[in-house]
Amino acid sequence: MEQGIQQNKDMKLLGIFTRRRPATIKTALEGVPVFHVDDAEKMTGEIDVMILCGGSASDLPIQGPLFAGLFNTVDGYDAHARVPDYFQAVNSRALAAGKVSIIAGGWDPGMFSVNRLYAEAILPQGNTYTFWGKGVSQGHSDAVRRVKGVQDAKQYTIPLEKAIEAVKSGHMPELTTGERHRRECFVVAEEGADKLRIEQEIKTMPDYFAGYDTTVHFITAEELKKHHSGIPHGGLVIRYGKTGLQKPHSHIIEYKIELGSNPDFTANVLIAFARAAYRLNKEGQSGARTVVDIPPAYLSPKSAAEIRKTFI
Amino acid sequence: MEQGIQQNKDMKLLGIFTRRRPATIKTALEGVPVFHVDDAEKMTGEIDVMILCGGSASDLPIQGPLFAGLFNTVDGYDAHARVPDYFQAVNSRALAAGKVSIIAGGWDPGMFSVNRLYAEAILPQGNTYTFWGKGVSQGHSDAVRRVKGVQDAKQYTIPLEKAIEAVKSGHMPELTTGERHRRECFVVAEEGADKLRIEQEIKTMPDYFAGYDTTVHFITAEELKKHHSGIPHGGLVIRYGKTGLQKPHSHIIEYKIELGSNPDFTANVLIAFARAAYRLNKEGQSGARTVVDIPPAYLSPKSAAEIRKTFI
Repeated sequence: MEQGIQQNKDMKLLGIFTRRRPATIKTALEGVPVFHVDDAEKMTGEIDVMILCGGSASDLPIQGPLFAGLFNTVDGYDAHARVPDYFQAVNSRALAAGKVSIIAGGWDPGMFSVNRLYAEAILPQGNTYTFWGKGVSQGHSDAVRRVKGVQDAKQYTIPLEKAIEAVKSGHMPELTTGERHRRECFVVAEEGADKLRIEQEIKTMPDYFAGYDTTVHFITAEELKKHHSGIPHGGLVIRYGKTGLQKPHSHIIEYKIELGSNPDFTANVLIAFARAAYRLNKEGQSGARTVVDIPPAYLSPKSAAEIRKTFI
Repeated sequence: MEQGIQQNKDMKLLGIFTRRRPATIKTALEGVPVFHVDDAEKMTGEIDVMILCGGSASDLPIQGPLFAGLFNTVDGYDAHARVPDYFQAVNSRALAAGKVSIIAGGWDPGMFSVNRLYAEAILPQGNTYTFWGKGVSQGHSDAVRRVKGVQDAKQYTIPLEKAIEAVKSGHMPELTTGERHRRECFVVAEEGADKLRIEQEIKTMPDYFAGYDTTVHFITAEELKKHHSGIPHGGLVIRYGKTGLQKPHSHIIEYKIELGSNPDFTANVLIAFARAAYRLNKEGQSGARTVVDIPPAYLSPKSAAEIRKTFI
């Protein structure tokens, strides 16, 4: 996030807010001030946008509405099913404070949401498919680590090529998450652990692995560190649609990302939407927004005239 | 366009306006009223949006500003370099009339513009590449047809795989249009024509083929009709970017379309933006807009609450 902000010449990182003791925080860049989160409310006059980096399970349900009442905010709230409720909670506080809060940024929800909407608006008759990966799933890696005899582990979610082919070939299949993805686990077993039992326990784990094509590789701690310490991710949104009543034509719209670092990319998306939140508020707008409510131009540091000249 | 509008339940095709005698026009769907274009100005009260289907060379420079002074409009103005001037001309008339005009819709300019902007805003450090095809280029097909001894012809523009690979591998190459694409011509020669000379003339044609890897196939009129009568097209926008100062990570954002019918898809994009033009105007907005000025949500027939529930 710190380095992402530095890529944008029109932005300045005023500081990082933490619940821990500020002195214990080591920042990525030198000279970045660290404040205690309780001091934030005294700094409403100095901060144009607050980027909320908390988790969706317990942090953002509290922090989102709280900070929406003090600052323009952007967050990466990612509990898809609870977005409508979270929107309401943030919206009322942001409206009361006269601030703009853009919720559920990032890539899914986020840029994938934008692309699902565009694609369906352009091709009303068709199906949309979302694939995740190849990438590290933190939740699934944690689940594997909880299996008895596992010392460390990393799990990759990988789109099934045959599912992507089926979608693009126009079969408009109905596909469950398990029919769209396979799972690959790299496991460091404790010495003397029963690897067959570990593999079996992983593959049959309800909710996480049962119903998926799962591969388990046992590797050494050194190999795990050397080859699997990054946090790559990615995915694609595909819409297959048809036009023409008498003589139908097939169309495919595909939005695909391959990310060397999931946290870096997610941060960069939030930073671009932070620019939009500030601008919208400066125009007098207030309330909660999702990514699809924001005109794309508001994300760019370029002027309207420059945009017409260079992007159109 | 007629069939595209029929895919959208919240829209109704009020009629088609033509410069020819209305009675000579055969509509794609039964029962679609056809009016003379001179009668349009009497119908300002009945029409929510006018979709302008004229060409960018001579039609839209006149029709764009003219109709912007009477109706909300959408058009597919595609002379990239002249967009800033065209915008000004349309903007002043739309402002005076209190109407909204969305210019340069379609896919390039259009959805490709939107994606170039999003990608650069998210990955400020990187390069963006646009590839066109595989698809039929009308202009190049016409140029081939003008070669002496050519009875009929179709030209396909095709992205060079090796250029796409170079972009994705992170070499950030500087590539001319000729280094990103190859050209394939299917030519029906007149009887007794010198095919070697025709091939040579095509391959060395300045502006159109010189500097490109061009292949010429001679086929029969029957083969041309059977295999090359469609108007497929497509293309992709790729941004390769980097994040992280101390430990850089690579990222790729790719937007790709494969279109069974270029005119059908382009029409569907204009129709979605027509919905947005009407809505923006209903909110009291006026003036010219490009696709990047429009919040994605305005393209969807779904309500804000439905959108939060289904797309986010």
